Parts: sequence; structure tokens; C-alpha cells
Amino acid sequence: MQTISFKIASKNIQGHFGSVKDFLLQFSQTSKPIVLTESKLYPFFSRFLDGYEVIQIEGGEQHKIQATADFVISELMRLNADKSCTIIGMGGGVITDLAGYVAAVYKRGVKLILVPTSLLAMVDASIGGKNGVNIGHHKNMVGTIYQPDQIVFDIELLKTLPENEWENGFAEIIKHAVIADAAMFDWLKNNSLEYFVNDTIALEALVLKNVKLKFSIVQLDEHDRGERKKLNFGHTIGHAIENLYELPHGHAVAIGMVKESILSDKIKGRDASISIQIDELLCRYGLPVTCALNNSDVWHLIQSDKKKNGGSIDLIAVDAIGSSRVERMDMDRFFRFFNETDK
Amino acid sequence: MQTISFKIASKNIQGHFGSVKDFLLQFSQTSKPIVLTESKLYPFFSRFLDGYEVIQIEGGEQHKIQATADFVISELMRLNADKSCTIIGMGGGVITDLAGYVAAVYKRGVKLILVPTSLLAMVDASIGGKNGVNIGHHKNMVGTIYQPDQIVFDIELLKTLPENEWENGFAEIIKHAVIADAAMFDWLKNNSLEYFVNDTIALEALVLKNVKLKFSIVQLDEHDRGERKKLNFGHTIGHAIENLYELPHGHAVAIGMVKESILSDKIKGRDASISIQIDELLCRYGLPVTCALNNSDVWHLIQSDKKKNGGSIDLIAVDAIGSSRVERMDMDRFFRFFNETDK
Repeated sequence: MQTISFKIASKNIQGHFGSVKDFLLQFSQTSKPIVLTESKLYPFFSRFLDGYEVIQIEGGEQHKIQATADFVISELMRLNADKSCTIIGMGGGVITDLAGYVAAVYKRGVKLILVPTSLLAMVDASIGGKNGVNIGHHKNMVGTIYQPDQIVFDIELLKTLPENEWENGFAEIIKHAVIADAAMFDWLKNNSLEYFVNDTIALEALVLKNVKLKFSIVQLDEHDRGERKKLNFGHTIGHAIENLYELPHGHAVAIGMVKESILSDKIKGRDASISIQIDELLCRYGLPVTCALNNSDVWHLIQSDKKKNGGSIDLIAVDAIGSSRVERMDMDRFFRFFNETDK
Repeated sequence: MQTISFKIASKNIQGHFGSVKDFLLQFSQTSKPIVLTESKLYPFFSRFLDGYEVIQIEGGEQHKIQATADFVISELMRLNADKSCTIIGMGGGVITDLAGYVAAVYKRGVKLILVPTSLLAMVDASIGGKNGVNIGHHKNMVGTIYQPDQIVFDIELLKTLPENEWENGFAEIIKHAVIADAAMFDWLKNNSLEYFVNDTIALEALVLKNVKLKFSIVQLDEHDRGERKKLNFGHTIGHAIENLYELPHGHAVAIGMVKESILSDKIKGRDASISIQIDELLCRYGLPVTCALNNSDVWHLIQSDKKKNGGSIDLIAVDAIGSSRVERMDMDRFFRFFNETDK
């Protein structure tokens, strides 16, 4: 098992690349952790979880709500979990977000280990400490930033992932490439979803590259005041349409990235070559790049977005593939350009 | 207005001593904050709150629950409060705890100002960033540690405080004296509740002394791993009996301090002179020092206490008035001595 250490503020975080089975076998001998996972996934992992207490919840974005957090907390109390306990969140982004939120607030914070089981959770959701639950159509309206102690990346877990889930992960990988890594953009362009699905070594290298990239950004700005905002590329529009149209997260972000990059083009009064490149790469990885939107519904949600600050909003402007910038703009101006981006 | 700055981790916190009316008049010109307060208190403050959005909740420990936090969050959303908003928690400990918790989790954290209106909230609850809600009889089972940006201490607000509330505040003041300030213990011993109630200058000096004392401890140990645990003196037993017997917080802590100091005496095999001094000072300030307890009920709650770690618990051992130490002890041993402390 390869272990990489990251430091965010004063907290040390270990990222382990290797078998989750080995990790759990070793871990259960030193501590009494409580596993939080999805009922649907439990049968696949139950063989690793001998001797662990397990709390199962229903998966899916519709269960990422306060009522589920309340249930998990009542289960922790039933199990007499004390301040020294460790919560292991094992699942996709919904589970890692819920596990993080509960670990942050239960007894004012307990230890947290994340075992992401989807590509999206490996390259994005499990890293950086953001957690939360949704309220109505509003994503992550309530949550904290709380870093895990350890994250276990086991590429073998991805083998049973449905196609839809692969696409979701690639939306965030393409986002990373667009905002900060032109070489990765080219690597993706010269290959395909099938290549990474079938070549475990290439896939592990890709995951590692994305984990390091995201950590390097979060290390500069844990609390989302500058550099980290770049990771919101595609998410201002993406979050609004995700719950409104019940789209998978990656699909919503893909459409959001195209919309936001067209917006960048229009604001700068330049040609569409950058947004076209992004559009093409997303298509190559099976992601949608457009859908029928009701602009006023979307706008209503954008106005209550966490990323809004008073009368302005931070747009992530792509200057070139691999290079981006946070640009604060007036909400009215954003809205005017947003209305003009219809394809 | 006198302003004192404190730094906890990397966060600067300003403590203002002076008129809350002046503070609010000045503040409303620069920002659009939202005030959280108790319905019962609102009529007293409404004249300061022209132009402020106000969320009112019912006061009392029984409302310090997740459902109230959920309600406040839904109100913030109704008011379109964005990431740049400021929440002003104006009230006693229940309000400052709830305001802190909501500010910590709403959109993953917004700005927070506390205006404690009770003596207890001024010298204790508003300082140090601990917040939370209760679950059943379990105090602060869910919460975070989240520092406010500013705290306003207006001694004039205490003029209408009922007697019961004065006693609650003095329980924490006596706690501070016992664990860390022998000179303050003597000052309290040579005076009385009536003296401080009627002498505003002495009272302001007492509040300032306690604010500084608590900040100095929290600065050393924000996350309750060592020094800060001393502030739990009286609270291990206190928290258990508070909700079980529906006692005011200060009464429960007073009884807890006496019980825990007798426990210290017994463990050290020394005479009872320290616990008698504590007992006498508490009586002088109108606080109860004993009540009929069902030891097994109390023990059941202590076992699920946040301060418990695996099979051991941290007892705050008082070595002398003004000097204390955190002593980790076996739960079984604690229980044996606890059963022997009946007066």
C-alpha cells in the first residue's frame, strides 16, 4: 500500500492507495470504528467488515438530507459511540458527504476515515473536507469543512461501477484538466473512457494525478476564499440544474462547464475555440453538453447559491485550457450574459 | 466603547465592552445582518433593531434542539441570506449556542456576532466557540467549535435579569475562580451577590476578568484536548443532572462542583477543606450544593458524556483553590468513588 501525506492547515491527512480489505483488517485491530455505508453497497463489502459496527442508509441524492443525518446520529448514540470513536464513510459522494457532516458535528467532532467507492468520490468528493446536506433543491445548504484523518483509494472497487458513474467521475476529472492541467487535458483527449475503464494502471495514475491536483488547490485555500473557488467551475450553473432537472451530478456539471465557458467567451468578446474544446472532450467521455433549461427557474436557484456574495457572484473564467481565474461579477451582468448563452 | 482583541488559532475575535445600542446603530450602516433572539427578549431590544431582519425563537433549554436549528435555517433561506451574511445571536446561552451552531453550518459557515444578555452567557457561553443542540437528555450532543467574529458585552443589559439568572452566572464565575484564580475566589468570598448586582463598576470588572480568564484558557487549547478540559469542572456530573432533574444550568454545575471536589478529596485521601470552601462560596451566592440523585440514572448519562473517552473519563482534580489539573481515570474507579460521595 502506497501512502501519501497531505497537510491542510494544521491537520495531517493520509491518502492510502491499495486494498481497502487489507486496510480494514489492520485497522480493526487497533480501534473500534463505525462504518457508514449504503444498503445497496453493503453486500459487496460485508466480507471486509467482520467485527465492525455498520450503519446502513439508503443511497441517492434525495437521502442527503438532515433527516438522514439525524438518523445516523441516533444510531451512533444507540451504539454508545463516544468522542474517541472513528466514523468510516464507505460509498459514493452522498455517503462521504454525510459521513463528513456527521463526524464534524457529533460530539463536536470525531475521527473520520473515507473510503470512496465511486470515481467521482475518489477524485473529488472525498478530498478537501467539504460536506453537507441538501435542503429542497438547494445543494449542500448546510454543512461544514472538516478534513478526514485518512482516505483509502482502492481502484479495484471501481470494477463494478455502472457506466453512468464513470461519466460522473470524468466530468470532475475534465474540470480539473480545464482549470489547472493542460497536459492532463491532452492525455484525456488522446484516450477514451474505454481505455481508462480497462487499463487499471492508467486509471490508478489518473486518480492519483487528480487527488494530488485537488489537494494542492485545497492546501492553498481550505476555506474557499480564493484559489479553491476555481474548483467551482461548472458548478454555479451545474448545482442549479442538478436538482431542478434531477440530473446526475456529472451531467449537470458538464452542461454547467459548457455554459460557463461560453459565458467566459462572450464576456471576453473572443471566439469560441476554448468552449468548443471543452465541449468536444466532454462528448468524448459520454457526457451531455446541453439540455433544455427554463432560465428563470435556474436563475432563481443561482441567486440562492452559496457562491453568491451580496450582489455579485464569482465566475470561473477559463483563459486557456489548463489556466483559469476567479472573476467577481455583478449578478445583473451575469444574468444578461447567462440569458445569451442558449445554444 | 472599550475593545479587546483575542486570537484563537488564526482567527481574530473582538470583544466590545459598552452599549449594544451604539454598536448596532453603527453596524447596521455597513452590513445587513440577521438577528436571532428569543421572543421573550424581543420587546426589550426591538428599539435597537430598526432595519434589522429578526428571527425570533422560543427560549429555554427544551428548544435547544435540531428542530429549532432547522427552523432558523429555513428562515435564513426565506430571507435569502447568502454566504456574506452575518448572524447576530442576542440572548442567553441557549441563543448564543444556537446562533453559533447555525452560523457554523449554514452555507458551511457565515459571520457571527454574539450579544450575550445574561451573566452566564457573558462569562461563559459566548466565549470559546462551543455551540450545539441537545438530543433527549444528552446536552450538546451535536455541535461544532466555531469562533464568533465579535462579542458585545453590555453590562446594562443585566439590569433586568431575574435572580435565578444571576445565580447561574455566578456558578461559572466561581468555577473559574476555583480552577484558575485564587485572588478572584477571595474577592468573591469577601463580597456578595447583592454587592455585584448593585455595583455596576465592580460587576463590569468581574465580567472582564472572567472573559479574559476564559479566553486565555481557550487560546491554549481550542479543541479541548488538555488545558480547556479544566473548564469542565463540575460539568461531568452537572450536565448529567441538569436535564435529568430539569435544573437550571448553574444549579446543576454547583452541585456537580461540590460532588466532583469531594471525589477529588476521596481519591487523594485528604481532608475535605477544599470542598468545604467551594461549598461555602456557592451557598454565599445562593447556589444549591446538593440534591437527591438516583445514582444509576446519573451514571447512565455520564457514560454517554462527550467527555468520556473509551473506558476512561477526565476528572478535573482541584489541588488547591485556584489550581487544578486534568486527571484521566478509569470509569469503574470513577463510579466507585462517585457512589461514595453521597452526603
